[in-house]
Amino acid sequence: MADAQTGSTPAESPDGPARKTKGRRILMFDVNETLLDLAPLKGPFEKAFGRPDALKTWFSTLLQYASVATLTGGYQPFGRLGIAAAETTAKQYGVSLDADAIKGLVSRIRTLPPHPDVKAGLEALKAAGFRLVTLTNSAPDAAEAQLKHAELRPLFEKVYTVEVVKVFKPHPATYRSVADDLGVATSDLRLIAAHGWDIAGAQAAGCAGAFIARPGQELYPLSPRPDVVGPDLGDVAAQIIKVEQPA
Amino acid sequence: MADAQTGSTPAESPDGPARKTKGRRILMFDVNETLLDLAPLKGPFEKAFGRPDALKTWFSTLLQYASVATLTGGYQPFGRLGIAAAETTAKQYGVSLDADAIKGLVSRIRTLPPHPDVKAGLEALKAAGFRLVTLTNSAPDAAEAQLKHAELRPLFEKVYTVEVVKVFKPHPATYRSVADDLGVATSDLRLIAAHGWDIAGAQAAGCAGAFIARPGQELYPLSPRPDVVGPDLGDVAAQIIKVEQPA
Repeated sequence: MADAQTGSTPAESPDGPARKTKGRRILMFDVNETLLDLAPLKGPFEKAFGRPDALKTWFSTLLQYASVATLTGGYQPFGRLGIAAAETTAKQYGVSLDADAIKGLVSRIRTLPPHPDVKAGLEALKAAGFRLVTLTNSAPDAAEAQLKHAELRPLFEKVYTVEVVKVFKPHPATYRSVADDLGVATSDLRLIAAHGWDIAGAQAAGCAGAFIARPGQELYPLSPRPDVVGPDLGDVAAQIIKVEQPA
Repeated sequence: MADAQTGSTPAESPDGPARKTKGRRILMFDVNETLLDLAPLKGPFEKAFGRPDALKTWFSTLLQYASVATLTGGYQPFGRLGIAAAETTAKQYGVSLDADAIKGLVSRIRTLPPHPDVKAGLEALKAAGFRLVTLTNSAPDAAEAQLKHAELRPLFEKVYTVEVVKVFKPHPATYRSVADDLGVATSDLRLIAAHGWDIAGAQAAGCAGAFIARPGQELYPLSPRPDVVGPDLGDVAAQIIKVEQPA
C-alpha cells in the first residue's frame, strides 16, 4: 500500500496549485451510484438469483471484496471482483448460474443510465468554469465505456481510476494519486459521491467532500460532516458554486 | 498502519517457534459468528427496526465501518462502530430510535450464546494438546464479557483483540500482532473463522486458515482455499487434529 505517498506537488509540475481554475477546487466525481443509476440492474438480478434483494446483496458483497482486496494486497480489476461477488451471492442463495450468465449480469454495469439530475448538474458546474474529473473503482476500460454510454464522457477532463495504485477507495492512496497527477494538493480537490465511505476516505486524505444523499445512502457517522450535502447533483452543484468562490 | 511489522520472533523470545506445542500451529479463533451465535439478536433487531433483514443490514454495515475505520486511520472500539452502524440502519429504514434503545440493542452482543458445536469442539482441541487463543474485532472488555458469558473463557490461553494495533481484521497487522506477542511466526498460527474475509486476511499475513462454513457464509473466492473447511467446529477440529500432526 502506497502510504508513503503525499499529496504534494510533484517535480514535473512546477506551477503546482496555480494550475487550479481560479483558486477553486478541482471536482472529482465517483461514478457508480453517484453519476450512474444501478436501478436497471434490479430486475435482471432478481430474475437470475430469484430474490428481490439480490442486487443489494451483490453490490455490498462487491464493496466488501474491494476492501478485502485492498487490505490483503490482492488487487484485481473491479469487474473481476464483481464476478466473484456474484458467484458468492449465487452460493448464498443456493442458485446455480453458469459463468456466462454471471458474466452477462455483471457486464450490465457498463450500460447504466445516468441519474436524471446528473447531466444538467455537471453542465452547470462546467459552465461555471470548474475542472471536472472522475475517480472510480471501475477499471479504466469499464469506466470509459460507462461514461461514453451515459453520454457524459465529454464533460470530464480526465477519467481517473484506482488502477494506477492498485488499491480501492477509500484507501487514501487513491485520492492522492489524482492530486499527484494533476499537480495539486489533496486539499485542492473535492470528491462528489453518493457513498458515505467514499467521502470519509477522501476527507481522511485531505480532500473536501460533497455528499449526494441518494435514497438509502448515509454519511459515515464518525467522519466530519462535509460542507456540501444535498439530495441530488442539481442541489449539490448550486452549493458548490456558492462555496467555491474564486479566490 | 503497521505494515512494517513482521511475524518474526522478537528479541524477548529467544526460543521462538520452539514455544509452539509439539511443533503444531497455535489455534487462533475469531469470536462473533464463529464461536458465538448472532441469531438471538434477530428478533430484537426486527422488532426495533421493523424489518426482518435488520440484523443482517446492521452487521454488514458494521463490518463495512470497520474497513472504513481501518483505511481512514480513524480507529474506534468495535462497540462504538456498532452504535454508528445501528444509527445508519435506522436512518436507512426511516425509523426513529433514541440513543438508549440503540445502545441497548448493540450491547446484546455481549450476551450471545455459543453455537451448539463450539464447546465440544474447543474441548477436543484442548484435550489433543493444542494451545488456543482468540483474535477478535471486539474491544478487550467486550471480548472478555462475551467469552465469560458463553462459558468459554477458561478454554483460551489468551484473549487477543485488534485494539493493540488499532486497525481491524482483515488488516495483516492484526494477525501479526498475535504472532509477535506469542513469539512465533505468522506461519505458526492457524485462524479458525466463519468469515471468508477473515481467512483471506490471515492467509495474506502468512497464517494457515480453517473455515467453518456456517449457513450463509462463503469463502472469499480470490484467495487460496484453506486446507481445512467444514460445516461446524466438531468437523473442523477433527480435521485440524489430523492435519496438525506433531512434528
